[in-house]
Amino acid sequence: MSDEMMMRLMGDLFPICRSITGEGVRKTLRILQAHIPLIIHEVPSGTSVFDWTVPNEWNIRDAFVSNSKGERVIDFHKHNLHILNYSTPVHTRLNLAELKPHLYTSTEHPDWIPYRTSYYSPNWGFCLAHNDLLKLPEDTYEVVIDSTLEPGFLTYGELSLPGETEDEVIISTHVCHPSMCNDNLSGIVVATALARMLLDKPRRHSYRFIFVPGTIGSITWLARNQDSLYKIRHGLVISNLGDAAGFTYKRTRAGNAVIDRLVEQALAETGTEYRVLDFVPYGYDERQFNSPGIQLPVGAFWRSQHGTYNQYHTSADDLTFVQPHQLQESLQMLATITDILETNRTYLNLKPMGEPQLGKRGLYQSIAGDSNHATLQSALLWVLNFSDGTHDLLAIASKSKLPFRTIAQAAQLLAKTDLLKIHS
Amino acid sequence: MSDEMMMRLMGDLFPICRSITGEGVRKTLRILQAHIPLIIHEVPSGTSVFDWTVPNEWNIRDAFVSNSKGERVIDFHKHNLHILNYSTPVHTRLNLAELKPHLYTSTEHPDWIPYRTSYYSPNWGFCLAHNDLLKLPEDTYEVVIDSTLEPGFLTYGELSLPGETEDEVIISTHVCHPSMCNDNLSGIVVATALARMLLDKPRRHSYRFIFVPGTIGSITWLARNQDSLYKIRHGLVISNLGDAAGFTYKRTRAGNAVIDRLVEQALAETGTEYRVLDFVPYGYDERQFNSPGIQLPVGAFWRSQHGTYNQYHTSADDLTFVQPHQLQESLQMLATITDILETNRTYLNLKPMGEPQLGKRGLYQSIAGDSNHATLQSALLWVLNFSDGTHDLLAIASKSKLPFRTIAQAAQLLAKTDLLKIHS
Amino acid sequence: MSDEMMMRLMGDLFPICRSITGEGVRKTLRILQAHIPLIIHEVPSGTSVFDWTVPNEWNIRDAFVSNSKGERVIDFHKHNLHILNYSTPVHTRLNLAELKPHLYTSTEHPDWIPYRTSYYSPNWGFCLAHNDLLKLPEDTYEVVIDSTLEPGFLTYGELSLPGETEDEVIISTHVCHPSMCNDNLSGIVVATALARMLLDKPRRHSYRFIFVPGTIGSITWLARNQDSLYKIRHGLVISNLGDAAGFTYKRTRAGNAVIDRLVEQALAETGTEYRVLDFVPYGYDERQFNSPGIQLPVGAFWRSQHGTYNQYHTSADDLTFVQPHQLQESLQMLATITDILETNRTYLNLKPMGEPQLGKRGLYQSIAGDSNHATLQSALLWVLNFSDGTHDLLAIASKSKLPFRTIAQAAQLLAKTDLLKIHS
Repeated sequence: MSDEMMMRLMGDLFPICRSITGEGVRKTLRILQAHIPLIIHEVPSGTSVFDWTVPNEWNIRDAFVSNSKGERVIDFHKHNLHILNYSTPVHTRLNLAELKPHLYTSTEHPDWIPYRTSYYSPNWGFCLAHNDLLKLPEDTYEVVIDSTLEPGFLTYGELSLPGETEDEVIISTHVCHPSMCNDNLSGIVVATALARMLLDKPRRHSYRFIFVPGTIGSITWLARNQDSLYKIRHGLVISNLGDAAGFTYKRTRAGNAVIDRLVEQALAETGTEYRVLDFVPYGYDERQFNSPGIQLPVGAFWRSQHGTYNQYHTSADDLTFVQPHQLQESLQMLATITDILETNRTYLNLKPMGEPQLGKRGLYQSIAGDSNHATLQSALLWVLNFSDGTHDLLAIASKSKLPFRTIAQAAQLLAKTDLLKIHS
Repeated sequence: MSDEMMMRLMGDLFPICRSITGEGVRKTLRILQAHIPLIIHEVPSGTSVFDWTVPNEWNIRDAFVSNSKGERVIDFHKHNLHILNYSTPVHTRLNLAELKPHLYTSTEHPDWIPYRTSYYSPNWGFCLAHNDLLKLPEDTYEVVIDSTLEPGFLTYGELSLPGETEDEVIISTHVCHPSMCNDNLSGIVVATALARMLLDKPRRHSYRFIFVPGTIGSITWLARNQDSLYKIRHGLVISNLGDAAGFTYKRTRAGNAVIDRLVEQALAETGTEYRVLDFVPYGYDERQFNSPGIQLPVGAFWRSQHGTYNQYHTSADDLTFVQPHQLQESLQMLATITDILETNRTYLNLKPMGEPQLGKRGLYQSIAGDSNHATLQSALLWVLNFSDGTHDLLAIASKSKLPFRTIAQAAQLLAKTDLLKIHS
Repeated sequence: MSDEMMMRLMGDLFPICRSITGEGVRKTLRILQAHIPLIIHEVPSGTSVFDWTVPNEWNIRDAFVSNSKGERVIDFHKHNLHILNYSTPVHTRLNLAELKPHLYTSTEHPDWIPYRTSYYSPNWGFCLAHNDLLKLPEDTYEVVIDSTLEPGFLTYGELSLPGETEDEVIISTHVCHPSMCNDNLSGIVVATALARMLLDKPRRHSYRFIFVPGTIGSITWLARNQDSLYKIRHGLVISNLGDAAGFTYKRTRAGNAVIDRLVEQALAETGTEYRVLDFVPYGYDERQFNSPGIQLPVGAFWRSQHGTYNQYHTSADDLTFVQPHQLQESLQMLATITDILETNRTYLNLKPMGEPQLGKRGLYQSIAGDSNHATLQSALLWVLNFSDGTHDLLAIASKSKLPFRTIAQAAQLLAKTDLLKIHS
């Protein structure tokens, strides 16, 4: 997808009030279906999923606080962050002191509306800029929350792209956040664009994209797919992909999975600043994939880390905060990562006794015109020496300090001769 | 024990002339029996203990050098360091040149009496301040050493505190040094105070305290207890615990025992300066516990390392050199170490598929009033994620960079629910 | 060999025009036979050796370019680097433009003749100083190369020095370079001197020296000796041993072979600057020994690394570039390395329960006169503690940070008692 297409999609999704259940997620997924053949799954409220239960479905039509003159001083229709997400329905009149315990603000960023939720303990409330709270006079306020919290469904989207093998790569992103762009329309849009890109390509791996509400969504997906989890060989949970920071990779629980080595190699080759973090059991849905009974090799990929930028979980995480070229750069980085996943193999040197004679196979000629000559020549020797069945191309790239693409190019040249074959 | 009690005990023990055998050790152990129910063992001279033989018992009543006027110019009764420890009996007259080969001084610290021994090659001698040696005129000196070196016993003390399990923690300290405080009345006093403290507590581990003469004492103890060494799971050899230096930990030979991880974690959490040293095959009795045929997980715990302070093995290592609050700090550190030993367990997450729902078990509520809220919340997740049967709480504390006590608190909270049980 | 003998041998070898086959190598090996009982092997052209075929034998009698006045402007008899090594025979007349594609120079070092070869693609050419090329006027030149490239033999030299055991140490050096001193008359001369030195000594290991043309020579040797490669326990490929740089060691492919630990320990003990490099699959013949089907523990030992000094592969690598004391220092370092190889053993402590009593075995006395007393005393304890069947003396030297010779001396003292015996 072009920068513009990604921004247009983000613009379409921005106004929707999403939550962990309800019409917001459904609308979001239907918009994505215009780009990729997503299947929408509906899981009934009350379904047991591991230690959890799918909650009642939440929907909201209107919510406001109006003063004694009937003026709406807080209005859900102005910004859907105004409502405490998952607020129970209410219609009452309160004075300011009674109202205040239900009002959430951020004194640190007094002009921005904070994002607050109360999914699992029934409550109601409003969020607003702290400066607006200070302006509220003593008065009698009418409070209306026209929401429903009733048996329904938890909704998620799934796209399976079968490849030559059953070995599966999973990309997961969360779809529960209302109008905020970096967290996480950026993840939704980039995942959609990446899926769109992979749709058109031959694939050695199978790919599975899941668009799920945070925590309960990934737990629900895992619980419903236990029998096929064994197919997952690599995975990434993606979010926060539109801001200006360099890339951040959070390792899997094991810390030495192929995806760990791969993303670190890819990031190192960018030549730009990046961060690699060890696994910690909090963050996004990588914590579910890395729980001790699941232990799938799934890392997390971000630009900024959640919670480390001022706009995080506020109304300032809007369409001006993310930049199209940053979304595009994130998409391209993920495309590079999947390219390496497709290309990374373990080869076997078929003439392992001494160095084979490259000259008689035209391997000097074949590369004479290449400006990259000396490097590729060296890559041929690295691939031959370490293709002993125990080093994949990533390991050889890392050992040789040569770019993965040069090592892969050398392997492809050699694999056309009698010198090298795929081992695994 | 209070600071004062520890200093009083040290004052009682200070004047006694100890050695590797003899009445000095017996008197010392009898004084300790007023505080802890120590059993005193007597091993006959001539007993074979591994490659060694228990030597004859040494006792001394008087020793002096007097000048031709009959004045004692060196007098054992003024300071028991004046006698070369284990000196054979002698009564003779010598001129200064004949006497000098039997006089030991320290030119580096000319006002202090050095501590010298000759346990295994028969010899006699006196130690004195170098400045006093310089003052000795040419004269005929009478030399009297009223000592005995005869078949008798090697004496050591032992205290066994049985716990819920046979798994044993051994604390060893040496009792062979005469009137010096840091090396090693400090070790004797702190070991006694620690034993006193553990006597009154419920204990998961069994504890064994041994008060032994250096080298020959620990070898004798090991030789006599070969059949039960398998019970020892952790151990420390302690000494030099009263000076002003930060703590020093010397690792076991393996270097990665639980006691190694534990003491390093505990020291790191103090936030003060400390040193951790790799095992070397010299030092105190840790070298016996770590000999290649024994290989018990026993580290060494000191403030200053032996030989690194000026007062070491001189008369300046006296009651003014150690400070009560430093003894107390050493005691408290050892108490912390035994607390962690008691608390450190490996747990099993009983809901390992995805993250369990903490809210429905009141684990948010239970901690809401805790100022430590966010840290404990994070500790709950660390404990759940890594309680897979292969990480003990120490490993989780180390991975999470959270204090051990927070991790332990989280484990205890979780163990009250259906989420966690003890694995080992 | 003395400095002078090594320089005289180098002077004898310098004028010879060597290549990968032909009379130059034969003459070289015959000169070495005056010093060591080398066996000369001849392998017929056309012989299959792994992926390669022994090429036709190249010999050259004369080669020149003369101008229209009959003056030789490039003359092989002035310097044998003037000929492109392995040039096919030619007799023709060319103008300057036609001649130039066959002339090789170095613009970087315009006064020196570069060294160029074309072993495996038939070609002819001359090498000359770039400044001399610039002086060549437009003219008609006569080009004569009186060479032959015909079925014959590949020639290499081999010296086997049987030892007490079949365990073999291989030292390999390349003999294909014409008149250049550091690369590689230095390797040839030092290998000869080392072999001369080992001839006169009792040897626990067997030693094998091979003097082979680069690449094809080591491949030929490996292919012809496949059945006995299993005997090789350690090895070094040596070259570039006469220049002024500190030593360089290039590790084996595994990186943790005994030879790796050994050379690093020996270099560290020199107290001078040195470099240790990880294995890379290019360089000299170590790449054949470390190919994935061979994987022998063979490192490479140099002063300067090939390609890192200006004179490399030019006429400036002459008899003034190498210094006799540098050759001698290289020889002595290799002698130290073989000494350590002979001395390094794994011992077993026969009294492993506690520390044995050294005093009663006179091990204090035996060392009392030694200025090295305290260090040796400590070495005795290190050897006793770590002689558990899993640490060789090198490992103990490394752990203790004591010199290998001190650890070895301690082991030899202990092995004379009932405390220690050789394990392996």
